[in-house]
Parts: sequence; structure tokens; C-alpha cells
Amino acid sequence: MVKVSIIGSGNVAQHLIAAFQKSQKSGAGVALVQAFSRKKESLASLLDADSITTDLCTLQEADLYIIAVSDDAIEMVSNQLPFKNRLVVHTSGSASLDVLNDANRKGVFYPLQTFTRNKPVDFKTIPLCLEAENASDYQLLEKVAVMISDAVYPIHSNQRKALHVAAVFVNNFTNHLYKIGNDICREHQVPFDILKPLIAETAKKIMTLSPEQAQTGPAIRKDQKTIEAHELFLTDTHQSTIYKILTQSIQDNGKKL
Amino acid sequence: MVKVSIIGSGNVAQHLIAAFQKSQKSGAGVALVQAFSRKKESLASLLDADSITTDLCTLQEADLYIIAVSDDAIEMVSNQLPFKNRLVVHTSGSASLDVLNDANRKGVFYPLQTFTRNKPVDFKTIPLCLEAENASDYQLLEKVAVMISDAVYPIHSNQRKALHVAAVFVNNFTNHLYKIGNDICREHQVPFDILKPLIAETAKKIMTLSPEQAQTGPAIRKDQKTIEAHELFLTDTHQSTIYKILTQSIQDNGKKL
Repeated sequence: MVKVSIIGSGNVAQHLIAAFQKSQKSGAGVALVQAFSRKKESLASLLDADSITTDLCTLQEADLYIIAVSDDAIEMVSNQLPFKNRLVVHTSGSASLDVLNDANRKGVFYPLQTFTRNKPVDFKTIPLCLEAENASDYQLLEKVAVMISDAVYPIHSNQRKALHVAAVFVNNFTNHLYKIGNDICREHQVPFDILKPLIAETAKKIMTLSPEQAQTGPAIRKDQKTIEAHELFLTDTHQSTIYKILTQSIQDNGKKL
Repeated sequence: MVKVSIIGSGNVAQHLIAAFQKSQKSGAGVALVQAFSRKKESLASLLDADSITTDLCTLQEADLYIIAVSDDAIEMVSNQLPFKNRLVVHTSGSASLDVLNDANRKGVFYPLQTFTRNKPVDFKTIPLCLEAENASDYQLLEKVAVMISDAVYPIHSNQRKALHVAAVFVNNFTNHLYKIGNDICREHQVPFDILKPLIAETAKKIMTLSPEQAQTGPAIRKDQKTIEAHELFLTDTHQSTIYKILTQSIQDNGKKL
């Protein structure tokens, strides 16, 4: 039985705790022994009071400590751990391995998904990107990871950086394009709901087609008349700048600039 | 029984024909009497040869003619119709009502969705944006539209323009962000599949949360350290320009510039 301890109480920590609990119920060989939270209340809906500690010095022995806190806090938390030579990982897409204190063996356990508080996710479908400094630690991480996810990948630090940047494009920036769509609708008294089937289909298409195959619209068609009409239509500076640059980028498709 | 004729053989025309055929089978009060295609072969998989004409002059009488051709061809096709004072609509999000010839009564029957050839869609979920010059024509359009879709909206020309621009942002531009994500993955030998659950969840979130509520990431958190690391990481000019401008736009969120 692999003993896991989770340090943190935010979105990622809570979703991980829920995933390990589910896996434990189904009899998999992982035990969530304890979680750390600055305030017991933050995890009270998930764990018994006995399983939560608010003092890092009282952390029980475990085979794996998962630090699931904000990027800025990883280093500080890692420095405060009261033990040595145990396996300690963080869950960040962007933080380096080096932010973890050298006193312990280091690794990464990065779930590549956007988590919303109180919105359950099917953890089994969430890709887990793993990294460790040596093979036996990697094997332990993998053993734990496959208990909660069906999509486990060995990803080294530079690849993880690439994935994190790519995730900003396909998640953060895509959501911002939804916001612009919503703003344009609101300004013209059109319900945003009209766009939702299109948003769903756009995401669905990419599951089976390459982005190149899926690309449609005036930019790729080089339909200059429509592009000019759209540019005239947009009065907000951000919107028209984004329109121009993305149109240009679609048209220069494939050219490395 | 409302008699409908479809002029065109592209993606939209084919999906409309399939939707009307389905509705006819379920006994709804619409009959697809004929379709026009420059080549019979284009529609041969959908219709009997007798129901396809390659000559606009032999178009049979119908209550509604739906011109589903490329934007540039609408005017020419409309000018060639050999009858007067019948209801003729186009299916374009961006073309004006005026491109239709004055000889007939005008309208718009705009399905707001991205269509892929040979990929079936559930037409019932596709928003149909309708416009007509008078109330009785609108009623007829609506009567036809509700037979194939559960999402029918009266949308006047200016709103339709807004929707079309908004659709470019949430569909064409979003797909281009997927492409950039794919390019970054390929460059760093990471499978794009790792990003697919994130893409799916990003689109799913927007069905229940507002774009403002759903926004996450370094830009909205004003996490300058991560932003700078990402900007250093991106070596392609388009990618880094898009990164900077979308980050700025997220941070200026809500400010009209």
C-alpha cells in the first residue's frame, strides 16, 4: 500500500483528494494518509478532522508528499518540511524542479486540466504529467498516478514548460476569445447562447481532425471582403487588434516567423 | 405542406438537405421538392437524380428557395432565378439582404454552425437565425425552421453581422489557438492528445459559467513571473505577439479601449 500525503487545500488539492478517495474505495493500492491545510475548514467537507493537519511539523510518514499549492508558495512549503530524503513532488505546470528543497527527493505530478471549485471532474480522463530524478521514484509516481488517471505521461521539465504554454493558448486564451464573443453579442443584444453549439462543435472537431483540417472562415479562405467588413465592424481596439493579428497568423499558417 | 427548394451543393446545402429529409420522414409539414447543383454527382448520395436539377431555369414552384452557396455566388445565382415575387433566402452570416435580387421577396436562413463534409451533425441543436422583410414571410421561415431545429431566433441584419464576427472569434480564432498549441507540442515532442481533455473542458465550462467566471491562468492572476517565462519560451514571432496581446487584453478585461 502506497501512502500519500497531500499538502494544500486549493482546487488542485481538493480534486486530488477526491480522486484518491475514489480510488481507495475501489480497493486500489493507494492510501491517502493525511492532508495539510492552513485552516481545517478548507478541507472539512472532504476529510475527517483527524486526517487534516494545520502544522507541517506533524506530517506523518508517507511514501509520497504532493505539494498542491500556488506556484509562489511551493518553495516556502518545501523548505518547511520537517524530514529528509523522502519523495516530494509539486503539481505545477510552470514551476521548475529546483524550487523544491534539496533535502528531499524531487518530482512533479502535474494534472493538465482546468479545475473549478465544486465542479466534479472525471479524474480518470485527466492527463498526469510525471517527472522524477531517478527511475525508482518515477516508478512510484507512475504506480500512484495510474490509480487515479488513465492518461499518464513521462514529461521532462522542458516538455512540461511547452505544455504549460500550449495550455495557456488552448485554455486561457480560448476562454478570452469566448469572452470577446460574449461582449460582441451583449453589445448587439444577441443572446450568447446562440454561439454555444458552435463553441461545443469547435472543440469536438479537434478530437478527430487536425487543427489544419478543421480551420475554416474568412482568414483561411483569404476572403478579403468579409475581413474588411469585420474590421470595420469592430470598434474596440483590443478586439480589432486581436482580429487583425489572428487573421494574419492564420494566413501565414505554417510559416515560421 | 410547405414546399422547399435548395440551391447549392456545398456543406451547408448538403446538411440542410439531410435535415429536411429527416424531418420529412418524421411526417413534419415540409417537403423538399428539388435541389439545384451545377453537377448532379455532388448531391447523388443524398437525392434521386429526378430531384436534382442542373439548370436554374427548370426550378419547380416552391414556397421557399434557400440559396446555400458561397457568399460571392449568392448575387449571381439570385439574379439568374427565372421567377418573380417568390420567397428567396440565403444562408450566409455575412452577406447582406441586398445581395438578393429585388425581383423576389428576400430573407435569411442562417444556420450558425461549422459544418464538416461527411460529418453528421444533430441539426436540431443548431441555431437558425431568421430574417425576412415582412411578417408573413418571417412566419413561413419560422414554420420551416422549427421543423429542423429547436433553436430558432429572429435576428436582424446588424445582429447577424455581430454574430458572424463573434463566431469568427469563438470558432476560427479558437481553432487557430488549437493549432498553435499543436505546433508548440510538436516542436517539443509532446503528444497533442495531452491537451485534448483541457480543450474539451474549456468548452464545457462555458456552457454553465460566464467567460469572466471561467477565466484562469497567469494573465488574469497577473502572475508576471510566469508570463515573462512564457514570453522567453516562445521563439515564433506570431506566437509571442499573440501571447502578449491576448495577455494584455485579459488584464484590461472589461475596459473599453
